[in-house]
Amino acid sequence: MDKKKVAILGASGYTGSDLLRLLLVHPNIEITHLTAEKHAGRMISDVFPHLRGFLDLELKPLKSKLIPKDIDIVFAALPHGTSAQVIKELFERDIKIIDLGADFRLSNKNYKKWYGEHPCPELIKKAVYGITELNRDQVKKAKLVSNPGCYPTSAILGLAPVLKNNIADQTSIIIDSKSGVSGAGRSPSLDYHYSEVNEGLKAYKIGEHRHMPEIEEALSNYSGLKVQVSFTPHLIPMDRGFYRPYM
Amino acid sequence: MDKKKVAILGASGYTGSDLLRLLLVHPNIEITHLTAEKHAGRMISDVFPHLRGFLDLELKPLKSKLIPKDIDIVFAALPHGTSAQVIKELFERDIKIIDLGADFRLSNKNYKKWYGEHPCPELIKKAVYGITELNRDQVKKAKLVSNPGCYPTSAILGLAPVLKNNIADQTSIIIDSKSGVSGAGRSPSLDYHYSEVNEGLKAYKIGEHRHMPEIEEALSNYSGLKVQVSFTPHLIPMDRGFYRPYM
Amino acid sequence: MDKKKVAILGASGYTGSDLLRLLLVHPNIEITHLTAEKHAGRMISDVFPHLRGFLDLELKPLKSKLIPKDIDIVFAALPHGTSAQVIKELFERDIKIIDLGADFRLSNKNYKKWYGEHPCPELIKKAVYGITELNRDQVKKAKLVSNPGCYPTSAILGLAPVLKNNIADQTSIIIDSKSGVSGAGRSPSLDYHYSEVNEGLKAYKIGEHRHMPEIEEALSNYSGLKVQVSFTPHLIPMDRGFYRPYM
Amino acid sequence: MDKKKVAILGASGYTGSDLLRLLLVHPNIEITHLTAEKHAGRMISDVFPHLRGFLDLELKPLKSKLIPKDIDIVFAALPHGTSAQVIKELFERDIKIIDLGADFRLSNKNYKKWYGEHPCPELIKKAVYGITELNRDQVKKAKLVSNPGCYPTSAILGLAPVLKNNIADQTSIIIDSKSGVSGAGRSPSLDYHYSEVNEGLKAYKIGEHRHMPEIEEALSNYSGLKVQVSFTPHLIPMDRGFYRPYM
Repeated sequence: MDKKKVAILGASGYTGSDLLRLLLVHPNIEITHLTAEKHAGRMISDVFPHLRGFLDLELKPLKSKLIPKDIDIVFAALPHGTSAQVIKELFERDIKIIDLGADFRLSNKNYKKWYGEHPCPELIKKAVYGITELNRDQVKKAKLVSNPGCYPTSAILGLAPVLKNNIADQTSIIIDSKSGVSGAGRSPSLDYHYSEVNEGLKAYKIGEHRHMPEIEEALSNYSGLKVQVSFTPHLIPMDRGFYRPYM
Repeated sequence: MDKKKVAILGASGYTGSDLLRLLLVHPNIEITHLTAEKHAGRMISDVFPHLRGFLDLELKPLKSKLIPKDIDIVFAALPHGTSAQVIKELFERDIKIIDLGADFRLSNKNYKKWYGEHPCPELIKKAVYGITELNRDQVKKAKLVSNPGCYPTSAILGLAPVLKNNIADQTSIIIDSKSGVSGAGRSPSLDYHYSEVNEGLKAYKIGEHRHMPEIEEALSNYSGLKVQVSFTPHLIPMDRGFYRPYM
Repeated sequence: MDKKKVAILGASGYTGSDLLRLLLVHPNIEITHLTAEKHAGRMISDVFPHLRGFLDLELKPLKSKLIPKDIDIVFAALPHGTSAQVIKELFERDIKIIDLGADFRLSNKNYKKWYGEHPCPELIKKAVYGITELNRDQVKKAKLVSNPGCYPTSAILGLAPVLKNNIADQTSIIIDSKSGVSGAGRSPSLDYHYSEVNEGLKAYKIGEHRHMPEIEEALSNYSGLKVQVSFTPHLIPMDRGFYRPYM
Repeated sequence: MDKKKVAILGASGYTGSDLLRLLLVHPNIEITHLTAEKHAGRMISDVFPHLRGFLDLELKPLKSKLIPKDIDIVFAALPHGTSAQVIKELFERDIKIIDLGADFRLSNKNYKKWYGEHPCPELIKKAVYGITELNRDQVKKAKLVSNPGCYPTSAILGLAPVLKNNIADQTSIIIDSKSGVSGAGRSPSLDYHYSEVNEGLKAYKIGEHRHMPEIEEALSNYSGLKVQVSFTPHLIPMDRGFYRPYM
């Protein structure tokens, strides 16, 4: 089988670098293009020294024109808004696009309410919500896959069978989620300063986290019910929420 | 003011040693008697080297006869069952007793159900539940204070005003608690092995944790209502749950 | 005994807040004045909620004129340079000054080399290096105490008896130090971002850390020898280096 | 390319389970036999739930006879002594054996001194020390590869070029190593209890750690010099020493 050529947009953040880790050991993938605005011009192995010898690509600026014509799959690990803009420019190409960001997870109405004006609302309906366990066939055929957020993934996988089988009332669901710190990204702030996070935990954005409408939309679409959840995210002193170091 | 003479029974566990830390800087307390079964005969400063120079007492075996006659206050930081047995033997003395364990927190009926036969059920009613914010006057006058468990302390302080003011229905309370690892004590087991706890979290004893009846009894006694809670404790990768290293 | 009135300059950093924790339980101290540039106008208990009920002072701007006349002791937990400037203005008052920063730890020659021009070099010789175990009598009588850095404290206490008794050659000392993250202060940066520190460790500023000349000067002064050290600091994933949560 | 059939002896410890993680994504490997004394009869995916769906093998007792005839490669992740015993029984088979334990790392003389009597000293010389960067060709052809210890790997890779190029005196090497807790294995003890490790670090087995003779032998063999090292291992609060969660 020929290897698929892959570009990763936003390769120096936590999402992009973890994707690198996974794709590097995939037997049918060849990574050939990486972008990173802040580190453009540097080698990826200078930013992440553990990649030296495994991947020695130069990081390019995020310009759709610079993405080679022979790329088969583009992964976008970019801030919301930025992601939709680039995907709009790439959409006519004969490629698959997998967006790890938030731009194609919500209906246009909810996107406007929770994130702001969408750069290309006409593409929203063309995206398949990439939760494979529920949408496997559609994901296979999709041109644009919109991967779910971290909290929604865990909540949806647990709740889908509950709602499908009418085990719980769809208006009385309480989601008490915990996440490690890498979910907040790689930009320093006092909230994620080591000594502020270590030996503590906190609930945050109660009732106003952007993953709440995402969970509600995804579960409503799946179950055909009007799902309403109470969602409380917590930050706890570990790197990832879904992750054990031993696999 | 004369200093009160204090004995700590069970001084080599986490509860006992943290009590030591607090009492050592109290201006009206003098610690004069310590027990620790496993370490009897050793100096407390050999077990906890940070105490060297602050407290150089020998650890004694746990025998009520060995507790000096001039002790004013006894703190018991002992396993349940053991605690009630010693307190029974000390009860006739003219002292104050503060039990940090579980033996006097529940009614005899619930104690039997959740812990087993009580060594001295006749003393249960003489104990004051030591949650100062709610029982301040009784605590002041009590001969025997039964300090609340860790989870109950946090749950009761939050829920007491809610119930007192009829803000919530007393049968629909959901308590989602998180604790650090020191609450599980100092006995090694795979559950509390560093690499099993680090970078993970888990819910445990769902619906069957002994702190659930304690929370329900305490809140029912306080509010006059029949309180029923859903209680889910979680273990998270930190030392304590109520604790920030900077004070 | 009358309580001494204390001012803490720079009360919202890690050094200042830990000093607060220690002084609040000191029976002969009354804290009456706090400063914090960034948080001036707020209550200290808003910045550190664990202090609510223990200390409800307003944070003032750092102006020497605002420090009340009846203060007995001033602690400065300020950036270097800033500290010396304020101490210069306060020096004529009949008070004790304890500087927790770096401004009076080095000779003027080394200060110039490692930190830059000193705001009041004439005061350097009036400062006593506050390592009590070696300078106890001088510290007692000093008007200005210059507290040692974190790494120097641990290195000097270990090496002083070694040098005093000629056990090691003063030119072949290797110091391999490890510190938790709070030593780097409370300003966010990628270096101290939780996910960059957790599950890792690193050596840094090898051969160029400002605590190296401090260790060499202090040990040379103490031993009368010309001490030269190889000093390698490491950052490890914990809050403090000298600290165990249980006392 | 045909997939190689692999057996892992000791699959429920940290070494075995991390090997599982690595081999499961290897395109030319098929894992077909697992042993685990304590968990024999259980599924590996019951012991490590993250493997469910990836590997659903039953754990077998550690008996050489039970290892299928068609296995191509055996990995041993067993306690020392046990490992050599099994390898002795398997040695006549036409397979490759990779020992992750300590049994074939030292000369017989040093093994006797540091570990005790060797179960099959005649095989020691047939083992190739599996540090690929230095012994790549020999490793390729070896029937029995003895993988180095964790500390030795890091020390040897750093020191080999230094010694080869005569940059340092081979009798004045100081190795100050730090390791996470998983290196100590999965058996609970107070030393590795979460609250004893978290927020602390300690040096241990100074001058008497079994990895010291291993480092000295390997570096002496490689450089032709008689290498003597000062080796100080430290335990620090993280899972692994050589590991960053993001790759």
